[in-house]
Amino acid sequence: MNELALIERIAKLAGKPRSEVLVGIGDDCAIYRPKSGEDLLFTTDQMIEGVHFFPNAKPRTIGERALARSLSDIAAMGASPRFCLVTLALPANRTGPWATSFFRGLLALAARAGTTLAGGDVAHNDTIHIDVMVCGAAPKGKALRRDGARSGDKIYVSGRLGRPWETKINPRLSLGQSLLGRATACMDLSDGLSIDLHRMCLASKLAARLDSVPLYKGASLERALHGGEDYELLFTLPKKLKPPRGCFEIGEMIKDVPGRLEMAGRKIRPEGYSHFQ
Amino acid sequence: MNELALIERIAKLAGKPRSEVLVGIGDDCAIYRPKSGEDLLFTTDQMIEGVHFFPNAKPRTIGERALARSLSDIAAMGASPRFCLVTLALPANRTGPWATSFFRGLLALAARAGTTLAGGDVAHNDTIHIDVMVCGAAPKGKALRRDGARSGDKIYVSGRLGRPWETKINPRLSLGQSLLGRATACMDLSDGLSIDLHRMCLASKLAARLDSVPLYKGASLERALHGGEDYELLFTLPKKLKPPRGCFEIGEMIKDVPGRLEMAGRKIRPEGYSHFQ
Repeated sequence: MNELALIERIAKLAGKPRSEVLVGIGDDCAIYRPKSGEDLLFTTDQMIEGVHFFPNAKPRTIGERALARSLSDIAAMGASPRFCLVTLALPANRTGPWATSFFRGLLALAARAGTTLAGGDVAHNDTIHIDVMVCGAAPKGKALRRDGARSGDKIYVSGRLGRPWETKINPRLSLGQSLLGRATACMDLSDGLSIDLHRMCLASKLAARLDSVPLYKGASLERALHGGEDYELLFTLPKKLKPPRGCFEIGEMIKDVPGRLEMAGRKIRPEGYSHFQ
Repeated sequence: MNELALIERIAKLAGKPRSEVLVGIGDDCAIYRPKSGEDLLFTTDQMIEGVHFFPNAKPRTIGERALARSLSDIAAMGASPRFCLVTLALPANRTGPWATSFFRGLLALAARAGTTLAGGDVAHNDTIHIDVMVCGAAPKGKALRRDGARSGDKIYVSGRLGRPWETKINPRLSLGQSLLGRATACMDLSDGLSIDLHRMCLASKLAARLDSVPLYKGASLERALHGGEDYELLFTLPKKLKPPRGCFEIGEMIKDVPGRLEMAGRKIRPEGYSHFQ
């Protein structure tokens, strides 16, 4: 299976891209025609064999997860995904059925999320390395950011925390979009509640008081606070607004040393996943 | 050097992004506000330690080259680069001076090319893996593609071919922009003249006759035809148009089996670089 044949197979699996994508797989660049009144959002996330997944993990699951992680960033800003680019490095013996299953998993989620594969890059490597870039769109000036929380805002998460890696990621796209114009700050939980809330506090120049953390079945508080890969949304709402159904209030933004977190009167260290530590 | 500290250092080196980038490094996504009347172009290219460069190559050169390869795709479609995302996997012992030099090289070229670093992703890995996504803009409907060549069009390249890897890549951005509305097809030479021209012929459903190939000092015809990494532009112009200064006419698009290449009456096999072979 050489490079051209692999790209042709991917293009066939991907099918015709959505109409705003004027040129998809096969030219030097993909071309997207923006609609008037939209801001475009861009995120990229990598998954590496031996770092983010085991060599024997199912390729379909890996493909789905690789896209889901980036879609979660798009959800976190309240945007709608438009298209993605997939960069893939892999050994020659993975270019056959492995690559087909990988793209089937990725493309099935892409179809459910209303996005489309518009291009990317493939190269040879000893181990598998995946990078998925997603472009999303949000109404001009409306995208949710992590720096807008205000003192007194209530803090919410979109689901129970501390889930095992094997559970499916469900990017919270509809929830994110429903928070446009309502949430004062929003981000997704990828590295762990304590470090991600710490980052939101730093961006918003505030501190946070945690009152309770909803635990995933079987999870410890330790894991729910500091484990990563939850891919739920973390957001703040003014006190007077009701939270969307299924979300949990976990605390309040307060004035204190920026980035400081406390729970039951004790300081919590931001200890989620950090590369290079 | 942990992940947050590395990202902060990169953000400091990158400085404030250009004004269309409303949100740069530091949130879940970068935000770009399109101008009316522009199409957006997207390309991504990876560079892998041991595949695309040696472990002891200079980080500054690697950074510059990683961006230059993607800029060359933007040039090939006549677009102007707007911003880039950099995805980087690297060992912990490369997060210090190595990473600083890498970004200095990349950002120096970004400044010369009028583009800006808007975001990306970093992760830990045993070997270095780089993926650079560039977004460019072109006037609506005007981007150069590889499928528009017509029979009788003359074929040109923007420089001598067969250059050694060590020579600097100079993405042909101004040339590409000057070809808007003039060239019938255009692409960049990354894998080798024979395979890239073969691809242009397939896209345009034509064959090509090569008359001469301008050789880089010291290069063989074999290397100029089938060696990769030239990063010159390959384009076609209607017979009546004069080529831009410094470009070389190398042949003509002809009606024959699509993708067929000939030179001095003999068939040439498309034999440039292909991964997985």
